[in-house]
Amino acid sequence: MTDSKPAKAPDRMASLASLCKRRGFIFPSSEIYGGINACWDYGPLGVALKNNLKRLWWQSMTQWRDDIEGLDAAILMHPKVWEASGHVENFTDPLVDCKTCKGRFREDQLETSRCPNKPSKSPKACGGELMPARMFNLMFKTHMGPVEETGSVCYLRPETAQGIYVNFLNVMAPSRQKIPFGIAQIGKAFRNEISPGNFIFRSREFEQMEMQFFVKPGTDEEWFARWRAARMAWHKALGLNAAKLQFHDQTGKELAHYAKAATDIHFEFPFGWQEVEGIHNRTDFDLKRHMQFSGKDLSVFEEATKERYVPYIIETSVGADRLTLTALVNAYAEEEVKPGDVRTVLKFHPAIAPIQAAVLPLVNRDGMPELAREVVQGLKREFRVFFDDGGAIGRRYRRMDEAGTPFCLTVDGDSLKDRTVTLRERDSMAQSRVPIDALAEALRSRSAFEPPAV
Amino acid sequence: MTDSKPAKAPDRMASLASLCKRRGFIFPSSEIYGGINACWDYGPLGVALKNNLKRLWWQSMTQWRDDIEGLDAAILMHPKVWEASGHVENFTDPLVDCKTCKGRFREDQLETSRCPNKPSKSPKACGGELMPARMFNLMFKTHMGPVEETGSVCYLRPETAQGIYVNFLNVMAPSRQKIPFGIAQIGKAFRNEISPGNFIFRSREFEQMEMQFFVKPGTDEEWFARWRAARMAWHKALGLNAAKLQFHDQTGKELAHYAKAATDIHFEFPFGWQEVEGIHNRTDFDLKRHMQFSGKDLSVFEEATKERYVPYIIETSVGADRLTLTALVNAYAEEEVKPGDVRTVLKFHPAIAPIQAAVLPLVNRDGMPELAREVVQGLKREFRVFFDDGGAIGRRYRRMDEAGTPFCLTVDGDSLKDRTVTLRERDSMAQSRVPIDALAEALRSRSAFEPPAV
Repeated sequence: MTDSKPAKAPDRMASLASLCKRRGFIFPSSEIYGGINACWDYGPLGVALKNNLKRLWWQSMTQWRDDIEGLDAAILMHPKVWEASGHVENFTDPLVDCKTCKGRFREDQLETSRCPNKPSKSPKACGGELMPARMFNLMFKTHMGPVEETGSVCYLRPETAQGIYVNFLNVMAPSRQKIPFGIAQIGKAFRNEISPGNFIFRSREFEQMEMQFFVKPGTDEEWFARWRAARMAWHKALGLNAAKLQFHDQTGKELAHYAKAATDIHFEFPFGWQEVEGIHNRTDFDLKRHMQFSGKDLSVFEEATKERYVPYIIETSVGADRLTLTALVNAYAEEEVKPGDVRTVLKFHPAIAPIQAAVLPLVNRDGMPELAREVVQGLKREFRVFFDDGGAIGRRYRRMDEAGTPFCLTVDGDSLKDRTVTLRERDSMAQSRVPIDALAEALRSRSAFEPPAV
Repeated sequence: MTDSKPAKAPDRMASLASLCKRRGFIFPSSEIYGGINACWDYGPLGVALKNNLKRLWWQSMTQWRDDIEGLDAAILMHPKVWEASGHVENFTDPLVDCKTCKGRFREDQLETSRCPNKPSKSPKACGGELMPARMFNLMFKTHMGPVEETGSVCYLRPETAQGIYVNFLNVMAPSRQKIPFGIAQIGKAFRNEISPGNFIFRSREFEQMEMQFFVKPGTDEEWFARWRAARMAWHKALGLNAAKLQFHDQTGKELAHYAKAATDIHFEFPFGWQEVEGIHNRTDFDLKRHMQFSGKDLSVFEEATKERYVPYIIETSVGADRLTLTALVNAYAEEEVKPGDVRTVLKFHPAIAPIQAAVLPLVNRDGMPELAREVVQGLKREFRVFFDDGGAIGRRYRRMDEAGTPFCLTVDGDSLKDRTVTLRERDSMAQSRVPIDALAEALRSRSAFEPPAV
């Protein structure tokens, strides 16, 4: 067994970002051109990790239950959508300009911002005169069609939720769903943040996983409570450390104007407790706004009670990039295996690990590489497997620890005689012999992801 | 058996679009606001179909072979990328304005365009004076950061390929790949098309599945031929009708300036033979342009021969939306089951069908719904299954034909005694009895997707 010693908080994000670059998880976008602020590219291991999280969320929401339908709405929507949603009017930050240094700052973050001319001082204390604040809209604006004119303005969506609201009846009718039911969507959203940061925690281009659950008014508090519990249980089933998860119930001024209740699920990052997911009771605010702005009736008729009503909406909203970062932070450890020998290891749940199993010939002769290739062939249709014959076996184990690979399957001399391999477990580093024919079942049972039912 | 009578060509796209709306495959984006030109939303069946195609492409490229790595680059890239790629300068269409009707037309499509004032005539023949052509760039432009100024201009990527080129070394190093190897990516791209159309065939927002294979110069022609054959074989393995697929080898002026060779895979749509996928030998054009514009060395050193060279690139590029449309057109049939009785059926390969199996209690009593629910429980972790107890069994079969569901599993009175169900095959409408315990294997073997190895 090992002694787990996490790196100290201030170093932890730097160590993680460095690992991410070195191992091909995540790197700055357009890096050969000096990067582009707050946009990130996912390399081979990163895209696999993120895809696994997206797939498990999607299956949990749509495939494994029968009351949620999938949707994939376009990023470019009719501009009226953003009038109805309130984003054109209200999705703004207050910005102030400094007459002296020409810097531009968020008025609500002056204390923590720095003057470009006097980096040791905040803009409030550097001596320059600050202009009155102006409101700056965070939506990216573009033009559709061949003419740049007011009539052709459209926006990159700042959230995926509105695509669900405007399609509510388009989904309900053909799917033969009845209230209560939900619509789930995964997709990109864009916010022209003034202060992005903390690696991929807050970026200008990001991916949301949102589920909007439509319920009868009066049942909304019960459904809010159920989804609040269900989403926390889901994160724990992913292997997130329960001690680093907590609810943050919004109260008073924190609550958005449309929300009757809102809870965030917080995770303890090296830079503090921060939101990973939000569960909101949005009432009938959104559908009523779209009824008002589109002139279309979005109410439903309940056959059993002959009632007509506009449904309430319980929203669960989690960022795919943010969850990827959470999974990385949660998994990252530096462990002293024996005195002076520290390994870096990513302890991902096997269901989300980029590589589920590495297949390693002990040495590159005597038929071991050939048998290892055969093992790969037998597993790769179902599992994410990786063949590695480069270097000493100990070094290969460490490389797989760093990539977060939960199982190493080593083909050695005995394998050629009895068709068994050594299965080495990443976290305990325990080894056992498993027949080649039993490997698929061994990986399957060890990789199962079982979130509790709502 | 049935007599297959496809709808006549001119009606076929209209019938398909109508089915797509009615059954929740695809509908116009922001429809309650009158739609937004050439953007589309995918409903529950559509997103499932498209996701299945994306997943199979991704697995075929990355999981099932060991010489291709995955990548997910940001949509917003450094603007210099588009100078290097030539898009800022050359990604343009020639537009002409009419002084009389104020219409704006593509100069190379004047014959088929229509004057808004005299819709029976082309702009050339309506009498209005046409202004000289001006070049219009098809990239969507936006601004990043809080100030709209020249320095903050950025673009929505018009193709995903450049994200792969600029990350070539970022992927190669950590993945320990050597030439030849490939990088695969799925992601959105945007083109401000003047003349979008043919449903989801050409839209302004679309998703690409691109794989760039890096090879040693001199081996490029061999790899081009291999990928050309492999991609055609892949589409056939998906169940696309071989008689509706053909190669179109580009020659002379068709070839892009950077291409040494280019082949399109064409499919016969109701609106003619059109490109589904392109396989291009892009030479070292792209990497050399990025070397020139970034000042970074993107050459590789081959240990065995001590040679240093800039790799050639063989590109395979297919649109996820276009492939979804191809799968829909390919699957769509109206069949006369018996005189006067026509069924609409989508004959998807089971691997891509939105619903793989429907579970149907014959009647809603005597324990049949309960047993049907038990069957659903047993299958839904692995398969996309759907429970339907609404209406006569014949109507439910027809609904599933229209959704493209390859298998219906009917729970009847006998099922309660012997724990078997009727498995009804969509295409042949043949029925057989299958033990409940054998259903998973029956679905698995019937749903296998086996593209030939390259």
